[in-house]
Amino acid sequence: MIIGVDHIGIAVNRLNDVLPIYEELLGLKLGKLEKSKFHKIRVAFLAMEKMKIELIEPLNKESPISRFLEKKGQGIHHIAFRVDDIEKMLSQLEANGVSLIDKEPRIGIEGGRIAFLNPKSTGNVLIELCQH
Amino acid sequence: MIIGVDHIGIAVNRLNDVLPIYEELLGLKLGKLEKSKFHKIRVAFLAMEKMKIELIEPLNKESPISRFLEKKGQGIHHIAFRVDDIEKMLSQLEANGVSLIDKEPRIGIEGGRIAFLNPKSTGNVLIELCQH
Repeated sequence: MIIGVDHIGIAVNRLNDVLPIYEELLGLKLGKLEKSKFHKIRVAFLAMEKMKIELIEPLNKESPISRFLEKKGQGIHHIAFRVDDIEKMLSQLEANGVSLIDKEPRIGIEGGRIAFLNPKSTGNVLIELCQH
Repeated sequence: MIIGVDHIGIAVNRLNDVLPIYEELLGLKLGKLEKSKFHKIRVAFLAMEKMKIELIEPLNKESPISRFLEKKGQGIHHIAFRVDDIEKMLSQLEANGVSLIDKEPRIGIEGGRIAFLNPKSTGNVLIELCQH
């Protein structure tokens, strides 16, 4: 079951250029700044009531975020829904013909379990499911 | 001041094709279905905890959503932030050099006052401000 939106991920070329827009101009509060060599990204979390904006910068050319930026440029990358039982949700979706990028949950940058659905099945929206 | 995310707008070619994905497969609850000749769109509101997903279908070729779909195809169209004082926010943003699509608030499909910021100023994200 979907509980709510956990975060919206935005791909950026350089955090240092885009973060001030959200933090200083729009007045959102910077929560954590995380860097993960494993995920090949650096992320700024802007915490809001019940959800977050994630600004995601690639660490190197092998990051999926680099490929996104090369293809589409900066912009909204994904919507993440918080779910209560990620395994159950994935198996229900697969049984209903939804194409999954991650058939099994994997560990996200915040430590919770995450899985992405294939945008082909969701009207071209990259949807992440996450369970904290 | 930004209070929270009000909704995420997703541009779709045909609501009838995409709505069942969000309603039946993901289990989100359909709130209202609105059609506006003035805005040239038909919108399905999927209500969630504190925010909504808006699936937006163009009514005709003159709709800005048609132009978006032609250029980019289906996908996430905008993020809307709920604010407490839209005039104040717009004048503060403009004073800080943010380019505005709407210099004055206008009436949105739900009846509240809305204004869009220019994606050039926001890391290529179409941001709507809204005050209900």
